[in-house]
Amino acid sequence: MMLEEFQQSLRKFTKERDWSQFHTPENLAKSISIEAGELLETFQWHSTPDVQRVSEELADVMTYCLLLADAIGVDAVEVMAAKLEATRKKYPIEKARGRSEKYDRL
Amino acid sequence: MMLEEFQQSLRKFTKERDWSQFHTPENLAKSISIEAGELLETFQWHSTPDVQRVSEELADVMTYCLLLADAIGVDAVEVMAAKLEATRKKYPIEKARGRSEKYDRL
Amino acid sequence: MMLEEFQQSLRKFTKERDWSQFHTPENLAKSISIEAGELLETFQWHSTPDVQRVSEELADVMTYCLLLADAIGVDAVEVMAAKLEATRKKYPIEKARGRSEKYDRL
Amino acid sequence: MMLEEFQQSLRKFTKERDWSQFHTPENLAKSISIEAGELLETFQWHSTPDVQRVSEELADVMTYCLLLADAIGVDAVEVMAAKLEATRKKYPIEKARGRSEKYDRL
Repeated sequence: MMLEEFQQSLRKFTKERDWSQFHTPENLAKSISIEAGELLETFQWHSTPDVQRVSEELADVMTYCLLLADAIGVDAVEVMAAKLEATRKKYPIEKARGRSEKYDRL
Repeated sequence: MMLEEFQQSLRKFTKERDWSQFHTPENLAKSISIEAGELLETFQWHSTPDVQRVSEELADVMTYCLLLADAIGVDAVEVMAAKLEATRKKYPIEKARGRSEKYDRL
Repeated sequence: MMLEEFQQSLRKFTKERDWSQFHTPENLAKSISIEAGELLETFQWHSTPDVQRVSEELADVMTYCLLLADAIGVDAVEVMAAKLEATRKKYPIEKARGRSEKYDRL
Repeated sequence: MMLEEFQQSLRKFTKERDWSQFHTPENLAKSISIEAGELLETFQWHSTPDVQRVSEELADVMTYCLLLADAIGVDAVEVMAAKLEATRKKYPIEKARGRSEKYDRL
């Protein structure tokens, strides 16, 4: 399925339930943190991913992200592409290769 | 830009920097929580979104989500679509319309 | 230093800056998540604690926790003691010893 | 109850269940983020605190914080007191009064 097609289903799903009244940017930002916590819980005491559980929690985080992109009126892919360009400049290949330090410590 | 095109750039970006060694599912799940916190910070003391800052932090959360989908070998859109189907069953329109309660309290 | 003494300093610090207007329970709950993310960031790509950084971020999380306890009018130690009693019942020694599973899977 | 007394109960509780093997600093930092998310969930769609639920989730966050302080060998109250001194310098009363901006924007 294409992202755009999924986004259409999601918007219809939300509209049918009259849930956009709850989807303020702030509530969605809270929801993303909450769901990120549930995703992290699948790794609370170990490092091994349970692919089914991880997928479901990851889906929740991403879905709220798409709703937030809609709520603030931006295109999800465009903002990622713009940020990747910025990150590319902060982490030039020759300096960043094989290193996990923050750009200001490279 | 299409999602697939962005994902190709992201994979190339990661590969050029030899960063996939750091991108274990667990590290990515931690990264999603960390970035979700930075996103939430843009709403720490008020409810009004600063669209530029929110977009940048949202981009970080979503980008790590796509990396995690890759790391566990699932398709990001497919897992969202599967989860939406499950949510649709938990929240039938007639019971859920206009209500923010969890499904077990509807 | 005793906890009570620290709490007195913290309340005075907040009052002098007229900050209790920002310390609604919701804003403090957001702040705890934000600071928890900063704490987690000290472990983003590895497992080894940097004691100085961890201490500072941990201090931020705990300080917002104490402010939230004040904001909802409960005693921080009493609520922990009450919760520990509940947890004790959910995780009897003989069933829980050496196991990290959730109580409903023991 | 005094904090020290609670900490003794908590250490005994952990020891009886042989759980310190799970309580690495990293696992506890993850646990703090997870529980912070559950605390935030009590404010997901509104601002009004449910004191009982908030107290229970707050207790979980604080309890993991105390376990982390033990795991890295620091005193919980001392690290908060040290951090408050640092914050006091960043936010002088005359500049910070009644303002929620970060110190670098004051």
